[in-house]
Amino acid sequence: MLRIVVCVSGGGTNLQAIIDAVENGIITNAKIGAVISNNANAYALERAKKYGIAGDCISPKQFEDRESFNHAFLEKVNSYEPDLIVLAGFLVVIPGQMIQKYRNQIINIHPSLIPSFCGTGCYGLKVHEKALERGVKVTGATVHFVDEGTDTGPIILQQPVMVEPEDTPEILQRRVMEQAEWKILPQAINLIAHGKVKVVNGKTIIL
Amino acid sequence: MLRIVVCVSGGGTNLQAIIDAVENGIITNAKIGAVISNNANAYALERAKKYGIAGDCISPKQFEDRESFNHAFLEKVNSYEPDLIVLAGFLVVIPGQMIQKYRNQIINIHPSLIPSFCGTGCYGLKVHEKALERGVKVTGATVHFVDEGTDTGPIILQQPVMVEPEDTPEILQRRVMEQAEWKILPQAINLIAHGKVKVVNGKTIIL
Repeated sequence: MLRIVVCVSGGGTNLQAIIDAVENGIITNAKIGAVISNNANAYALERAKKYGIAGDCISPKQFEDRESFNHAFLEKVNSYEPDLIVLAGFLVVIPGQMIQKYRNQIINIHPSLIPSFCGTGCYGLKVHEKALERGVKVTGATVHFVDEGTDTGPIILQQPVMVEPEDTPEILQRRVMEQAEWKILPQAINLIAHGKVKVVNGKTIIL
Repeated sequence: MLRIVVCVSGGGTNLQAIIDAVENGIITNAKIGAVISNNANAYALERAKKYGIAGDCISPKQFEDRESFNHAFLEKVNSYEPDLIVLAGFLVVIPGQMIQKYRNQIINIHPSLIPSFCGTGCYGLKVHEKALERGVKVTGATVHFVDEGTDTGPIILQQPVMVEPEDTPEILQRRVMEQAEWKILPQAINLIAHGKVKVVNGKTIIL
């Protein structure tokens, strides 16, 4: 059974989508071992508590320097012995050492069709602002493995979403969550839980 | 009635899609006034002939310098008094003077979801090669107005297309044509023919 650690910073709606998918049998052969937040007040920790999932908090602010945080963060993650680490709106840069140790075992959800509107500093609401600024008619979301670059890792699943005429960044963000993120993140986890995702030459093959 | 000039360089499958859409009544209130090719051997000119559409040829190779070509090309286009110029696989850079004169009256079809896989030197099969190289799971096509940049003009329509596991650039190119290009190019022309596309602040509004 795949043991998942979910890393979050905020409300945790993607965490909720994973919890629901496990409860509804959309994800089988997997369980959430722990939720780690860098923010003690993240509502995601409340969600974890409600479902009896271990919640934990670690923030760069608690440490003297980045090096110390990175070390402690990796130790904490290791302590839950995860098979898969899911970044579900986690706003902390993942240490290189962790990426190496968990190569193709860390996945992230990005609220656009990569390579559109991705790269350094483009996450959350800002992604949708950029999409509306460019005037695209189609956007979406991407689940990908995390590598050393920003949003450059192997793509697992993508789901397109239509932009509507009256969209604001907030409205578009909600539609992308509902129609894409909350679907493909659980789907990707279920595929991984059943050994159906392979990485070959930097690209995924879905078996 | 909207008078269209279609500019082509090759086989003209997008031209055929426009011709079919006019014949089938998918495009109304518009007619193709002429087809201009930069290549005398383009099969697109045969297609034009077959449907009794004026075919014309003009190539930079016939001119001493770019300036002279640009002037002659603009003169030729002007002679057909177009309301709309459709670039349907036209591999010649549109002169700045022509873009100015026909502001928001020149449209182009690009075989990806702009801003993914666009920009200088990325057209035709190369776009699909790049998409497969990156390992995207969703691609598509975009119809946009032509401005001074490369693929930077206001987006009119976009259509997503799924990438399949065994895709080669050729197979993907064909699917993007069938599922996206041949649909949204006629749709965009019909919207323009009925005055339903406005450009405000560099973005389109579909009425």
